[in-house]
Amino acid sequence: MSRYFTKTLAALKPYVPGEQPRDMKYVKLNTNESPFPPSEAAMKYASEHLRSLNLYPDPESAGLIKALADTYGVASEEVIVSNGSDEILFFAFKAFCDNEHKAVFPDITYGCYTVFANANNVPYREIPLKEDLTIDTGDYAETGNTIVLANPNAPTGIALPLESIEELLKAHPDDIVIIDEAYIDFGGESCIPLIKAYDNLLVVQTFSKSRSMAGARLGYAIGNRELIRDLNTIRNSFNPYNINSMTYSAAIGTLMDREYTLNNCREIIRVREYTVSELVRMGFKVLDSKANFVFACSDRISGEELYRRLKEKGVLIRHFAKDRIDNYNRITIGTKEQMDILLDRIREML
Amino acid sequence: MSRYFTKTLAALKPYVPGEQPRDMKYVKLNTNESPFPPSEAAMKYASEHLRSLNLYPDPESAGLIKALADTYGVASEEVIVSNGSDEILFFAFKAFCDNEHKAVFPDITYGCYTVFANANNVPYREIPLKEDLTIDTGDYAETGNTIVLANPNAPTGIALPLESIEELLKAHPDDIVIIDEAYIDFGGESCIPLIKAYDNLLVVQTFSKSRSMAGARLGYAIGNRELIRDLNTIRNSFNPYNINSMTYSAAIGTLMDREYTLNNCREIIRVREYTVSELVRMGFKVLDSKANFVFACSDRISGEELYRRLKEKGVLIRHFAKDRIDNYNRITIGTKEQMDILLDRIREML
Repeated sequence: MSRYFTKTLAALKPYVPGEQPRDMKYVKLNTNESPFPPSEAAMKYASEHLRSLNLYPDPESAGLIKALADTYGVASEEVIVSNGSDEILFFAFKAFCDNEHKAVFPDITYGCYTVFANANNVPYREIPLKEDLTIDTGDYAETGNTIVLANPNAPTGIALPLESIEELLKAHPDDIVIIDEAYIDFGGESCIPLIKAYDNLLVVQTFSKSRSMAGARLGYAIGNRELIRDLNTIRNSFNPYNINSMTYSAAIGTLMDREYTLNNCREIIRVREYTVSELVRMGFKVLDSKANFVFACSDRISGEELYRRLKEKGVLIRHFAKDRIDNYNRITIGTKEQMDILLDRIREML
Repeated sequence: MSRYFTKTLAALKPYVPGEQPRDMKYVKLNTNESPFPPSEAAMKYASEHLRSLNLYPDPESAGLIKALADTYGVASEEVIVSNGSDEILFFAFKAFCDNEHKAVFPDITYGCYTVFANANNVPYREIPLKEDLTIDTGDYAETGNTIVLANPNAPTGIALPLESIEELLKAHPDDIVIIDEAYIDFGGESCIPLIKAYDNLLVVQTFSKSRSMAGARLGYAIGNRELIRDLNTIRNSFNPYNINSMTYSAAIGTLMDREYTLNNCREIIRVREYTVSELVRMGFKVLDSKANFVFACSDRISGEELYRRLKEKGVLIRHFAKDRIDNYNRITIGTKEQMDILLDRIREML
C-alpha cells in the first residue's frame, strides 16, 4: 500500500481468482468455465464488428438488451448489462446497501460478496449455512437488510426451490433480495418470472458459464424497472460505455443460437451425473449439485492433498482453505473425456 | 429513483455521453473517435481468440501489460489496464481521494471527474480556467488535494508544457497528480518519462482515440509501482477479470503495428491544421488544439445554433450548454472528406 492510498479502504482484501498457471498444460477444472467453444453465431457476429471498433459502442446497449428482454419475456427497461456479472453485483452493493441497510449472505458462498461490501464500505453479516451446507431461508427473517443469495449456491452447487425465494420476497417487502443465478442453467429454477410480482427482486445472470463466453465478460440483471434505473444511475456514473462492441455482437449471436446453449447444458448435466456416480462409487460424499461443478470430499484423502496431488498429475480443481469446507474440493464439469482423466487420476491415487 | 436506492448517493447525476442518434446517417464529429479502422493486426489477433472465449481471460492481463511496458520503456509493475480509461479514473478517485484529500480539477474539463467524485462520495473543488480557457498550474498551489488534469484538456484541446507539470509534481510531493492523456498522441508531450522521478504521478491513457479502438474499451495507467499496486487492490475488489480476451488480443496487435497508429495521428494533425485554417478564414475563433478535435466559436452564429443547424444538415458536433463555453462547439477531426462536408455546410449557413 502506498502512502497515498485512502485510509478508508486500508483493510480491503481483494478477491483471489482461481489460479491460471502457465507452467504446463492442465485439465482445467478449477474456474467453472464451459468446455465448449462459443456458438458459431457468436464468433461470426463478433468478427463482423471488428472493422468498426474505432467507433464507441452504444452506451445503452439497446440491441443486446432487447435480445435479452425477448429471451426472458420481460421489457427492455427491466434489463441492464455489465462487464461480467461481478460488475453488476458491485453496482447493486453500491446502490442498495449502506450503513442503514447492511448486506447479508451465507458464510459459505461466492467470495466476492464480502469484497464488494468492503469496497463500498458497507457493513455485512454472514449467516452460517446449515450443518449439511444448505441455506435455510428462515435464517434470513430479520428485516432491514439487503439479502444476497447465490442460487445454486457456490461452491456447494445446492439449489433453493422457487417457493423458498418467493416466501423470502413476501416477508421482505421493504428489502432488496438479490439472487445471483450464475449457474442456474444447469438444473436450477430461475426466479426471473417473479420480477413481475415483486419489485424488491433483482436477478443476476452471466454469459460466462452456460453460454461459453467467460472470455467476453458479460453479465446482466433483470428486475423491476425502477431498480434497473437505479443501477443505470450507478453504471453511468462509473463507466457509461461498459460493454465493448465485440462482446455486444457475440452475445446477440449467442442468444439467437439457443439450441446450441441448451444442448451444451444438457451435456454438462449428463456428464455431471456420470461424474457424481463415479465419485460416489469411490466413496466420495458429493453434494447435490444443480451447477456445472460438484463439491466433494472423501474420508480417504484430505481436500488439500487431493487438490495438490491432482495438480501434480496435471488436473486443476479448486480448494478453499476455509473452515467447514477445507476437506472439500470444487470440481468443474468439463467434457466426458476430461472427467475420465480426473476420475482415473483419483483412482490411481486411492 | 426507487425507494430502495441508497440515500448516500441520492444526488448523483450520471455522465451524459455524446448523442448516438440512429434516425439517420450522420457525419459523426461529436465523440472524438478515430475515422480510421483498427489496425489489421488488431482485427487478426482478436479473430484468433474467438474460439477460446469459453475460457476466462488472464486476470493479470500479463501479456498485454508487458506489451505496454515495452512500448513505453517502463516495467510491467508500473502499468495497469482497465475497461476504458473511465474505469481507471474511477479507481483512482476511489484510491486516492477521500474527505481528507479532496479532488481538484478545472471547472471546464472532462465531465466525468465531477461524476467520479460524487459516485465515490469524495469532496471536490473546480478551479476556473483563465479567461483565455488555459490552465494556470499556479492556481493549484494549495497542498493536500489530489490534482486531476486532462492534458491536452477537453473540450479546449489546449496542452500544458511538460515543465509546468513537473513544477506541479515538485510542489506537491505528498499529493497525487493524475494526468489524463487521452488525447496526447495528437501533438502533446506525454509525461510518462516523469514517473521514474516522481512517485506521485499517475498518467492515464486510452486506446479509444489514436489507436482506433473506442469500441473495444481499453484504458491504462502508468505510474510508480506502489500506486499501480493500490489501483490493483481496487480493481481486484471490483472486477478482477475486467479486460475481455478479444480486447486483450486486439490491443497486442495494435501495439505491434505502431507505424499504422503513427501515420493515423500524423494524418489527423494534418487535417486538423487544414480545418483550423478554413474555420479561421470564415471568421471563427479556434483554440490552439493538440487533440483530435477543435474548440471553436464565431461572432456570426451562436454555439447552440451552429450545433443545431449542422445536425439538421446531417453533421453532428458537440455543444456544451455550460457557462463560459456555450458559444463554442467541440468538433472531432475526421477524414479530410468529412471535414470538407462540415466546412461546406458551415459556408452555406453563414
